[in-house]
Amino acid sequence: MQCEIITIGDEILIGQVVDTNSAWMARSLNEVGVKVARITSVQDEAIEIKNALDNAFKNYELVLMTGGLGPTRDDITKKVLCEYFKTVMVINEDVLSDVRKYVSTFNELNRKQAEVPQACNVIRNMHGTAPGMWFDDDNKVLVSMPGVPSEMEMMMKESVLPKIKQHFTLPFIIHKNIVVQGIAESELAIKLDAFENELPLTIKLAYLPSPGHIRLRLSFCGSEQESLIKIADELSNKLALLVKDYFCGNEDIPIEQIVGNMLASKGLSLSTAESCTGGNIAHMITSVEGSSAYFKGSVVAYANEVKIHILDVPEAILLNNGAVSKETVEIMASNVRKKFKSDYAISVSGIAGPGGGTDKKPVGTVWIAIASPEKTISTHFLFGNNRERNIIRASITALNMLRKVLMGID
Amino acid sequence: MQCEIITIGDEILIGQVVDTNSAWMARSLNEVGVKVARITSVQDEAIEIKNALDNAFKNYELVLMTGGLGPTRDDITKKVLCEYFKTVMVINEDVLSDVRKYVSTFNELNRKQAEVPQACNVIRNMHGTAPGMWFDDDNKVLVSMPGVPSEMEMMMKESVLPKIKQHFTLPFIIHKNIVVQGIAESELAIKLDAFENELPLTIKLAYLPSPGHIRLRLSFCGSEQESLIKIADELSNKLALLVKDYFCGNEDIPIEQIVGNMLASKGLSLSTAESCTGGNIAHMITSVEGSSAYFKGSVVAYANEVKIHILDVPEAILLNNGAVSKETVEIMASNVRKKFKSDYAISVSGIAGPGGGTDKKPVGTVWIAIASPEKTISTHFLFGNNRERNIIRASITALNMLRKVLMGID
Repeated sequence: MQCEIITIGDEILIGQVVDTNSAWMARSLNEVGVKVARITSVQDEAIEIKNALDNAFKNYELVLMTGGLGPTRDDITKKVLCEYFKTVMVINEDVLSDVRKYVSTFNELNRKQAEVPQACNVIRNMHGTAPGMWFDDDNKVLVSMPGVPSEMEMMMKESVLPKIKQHFTLPFIIHKNIVVQGIAESELAIKLDAFENELPLTIKLAYLPSPGHIRLRLSFCGSEQESLIKIADELSNKLALLVKDYFCGNEDIPIEQIVGNMLASKGLSLSTAESCTGGNIAHMITSVEGSSAYFKGSVVAYANEVKIHILDVPEAILLNNGAVSKETVEIMASNVRKKFKSDYAISVSGIAGPGGGTDKKPVGTVWIAIASPEKTISTHFLFGNNRERNIIRASITALNMLRKVLMGID
Repeated sequence: MQCEIITIGDEILIGQVVDTNSAWMARSLNEVGVKVARITSVQDEAIEIKNALDNAFKNYELVLMTGGLGPTRDDITKKVLCEYFKTVMVINEDVLSDVRKYVSTFNELNRKQAEVPQACNVIRNMHGTAPGMWFDDDNKVLVSMPGVPSEMEMMMKESVLPKIKQHFTLPFIIHKNIVVQGIAESELAIKLDAFENELPLTIKLAYLPSPGHIRLRLSFCGSEQESLIKIADELSNKLALLVKDYFCGNEDIPIEQIVGNMLASKGLSLSTAESCTGGNIAHMITSVEGSSAYFKGSVVAYANEVKIHILDVPEAILLNNGAVSKETVEIMASNVRKKFKSDYAISVSGIAGPGGGTDKKPVGTVWIAIASPEKTISTHFLFGNNRERNIIRASITALNMLRKVLMGID
């Protein structure tokens, strides 16, 4: 079964806000067997919303919509849906009581939040004031949800996905992901040419390059779960074997989670000493739930004086070898490891840009070290010119270096 | 002039990748006076791409497209465009030489990158292997660009935006942004009711709530730049005055940039001591170009032993008051300020969740302190249940507290 997602909001069309709702919804719809065939973003304009609805229902039985449900006058989705489904607006007493409970001071705009089109089934919102709406009209289903991501996500999990599973007969969808590092996309494609030629037409292989790695995704869709799992396992194992020299993970989970799981399962601890990544590695690690079990902390040593006074990097080394050097980065790693009493430590020093580059050490030059109980190793990298990408690439590369050390393949 | 953006890629439709290209393109198109009326994301399927093109050209003169130009077989955009514009594929010698220069080892797939539809004007790509394509057919323009954000962005800046400005007669678009903190969206709407009633129909006011703040956006569109600037300035000043108690910035620039500009212009320095934000504040600060001029560094003190041994928080205070307390957070701020010899310091300690909450200190409890040369102040917050949002809200709130201290309005 295919569906369309429509996200509504002028802020999306002028690029002030990135639409992250669609990706989240697409992922969770896939998990229950609903395929998203199209995503459309339109302005807060009645005619645009109606056109999008007409166009969606021409092709699909299910339409999920977010946005335009706020209490302010730029939000018009509810009014448009009321007209579209030829119904009238009524006060819903359950919603009214939900809103009263949710807000600290109740006002007239809050009351308007409790008005809903009579023809819809209300989806109550326990995490905000705008209710969701489920319209079931002539065998076509429209679900309208708030645009605030956390409210939409809770509503999907608690109400919408269970209702979709009840309402439609759905196939199974399986995605298998393999993450590889250290090979270019076109080389990889040549390596996998024979494998792709042998794939049945119903199975798709996609290449998803990101800074620092490429994800390979195999997609399977079918009505029999058991046989689907079997073929998905077989083919993804075959693919993993073909790329084993570049293999970096077989699940689409971020590297900080992969490394976190390894540390947690082995009862090991980690600290970081960061210069050019500016705390991003610590931030990535601590974005994982439960990271306090293995992460001790970090010294973000942006200024040289912090490298000297907090990390005890000898001033002579900074003078002779520079802050971006093998010697500095190795001392940073081994000293933060000792000071923070952690089993492992990561350190990074480099030139993120756009300023700070020289002929010998251009923007993008990065040294990364990993200190372990046995030894400290370090590697030199030359990334690109883009500050944001350099920070991300250095962070992912450092975490992957730690992963290899933890696996004994450094 | 209105345009449509079409982004192509199965990875978008299954939610594996968030489409950030559209927002970036919409922002830069707005700056040159092109309004994005609709954004559509479709799969790597010929029929879907053709339908999207038909549907776009029914309504708009200009269509910008990204994605599906890679060297692998899941990428079919070029072939589809060739059919759509009834032309043939030819090798472009300029592109061939660009690709040869760009890749380290040239292979057959690289050669395919140099094939382009004969009817298009090639847009050369100096930052990747896939060329862009400009089709000018029957007064309708289609531009196809690679989906890799950095390649698309460079192509837009260097070639596509200048060509659009040459090709179309464009109006002026001005957006004025005001960021407010500390007031609920519905209260704000009531406060601004009279202002909104008086707005001409051609001027739009939008409310854009995010974790920690609300952005108000006034949008103006017209053909005379001078009168448009005048009315935009007048109305945005009037609006700023109406919300002055909650005013936090009058440009849509992130708080880390606002604070960074203030520190840089005053020649002041900053350090941070972070527990629950895990380095995110340091990461936000150092994501700003030139932040090394004012940011000394950070101690991410995730483990209590790091608070004790690196930040000299007395063990007795951690035992008696807890790591999440006024006392701990104030000592963290004043000690990191002294140790890092910075003028100001931010510290944060809290329970990001989902674990670690108690009856007295539930998940979402956060203490934030600001140490200045004169004194150390601290405030208690209770955010929500979502780990990611708690980290973001604590980080933004801490940076805004520093902003107020720097302005002398704490």
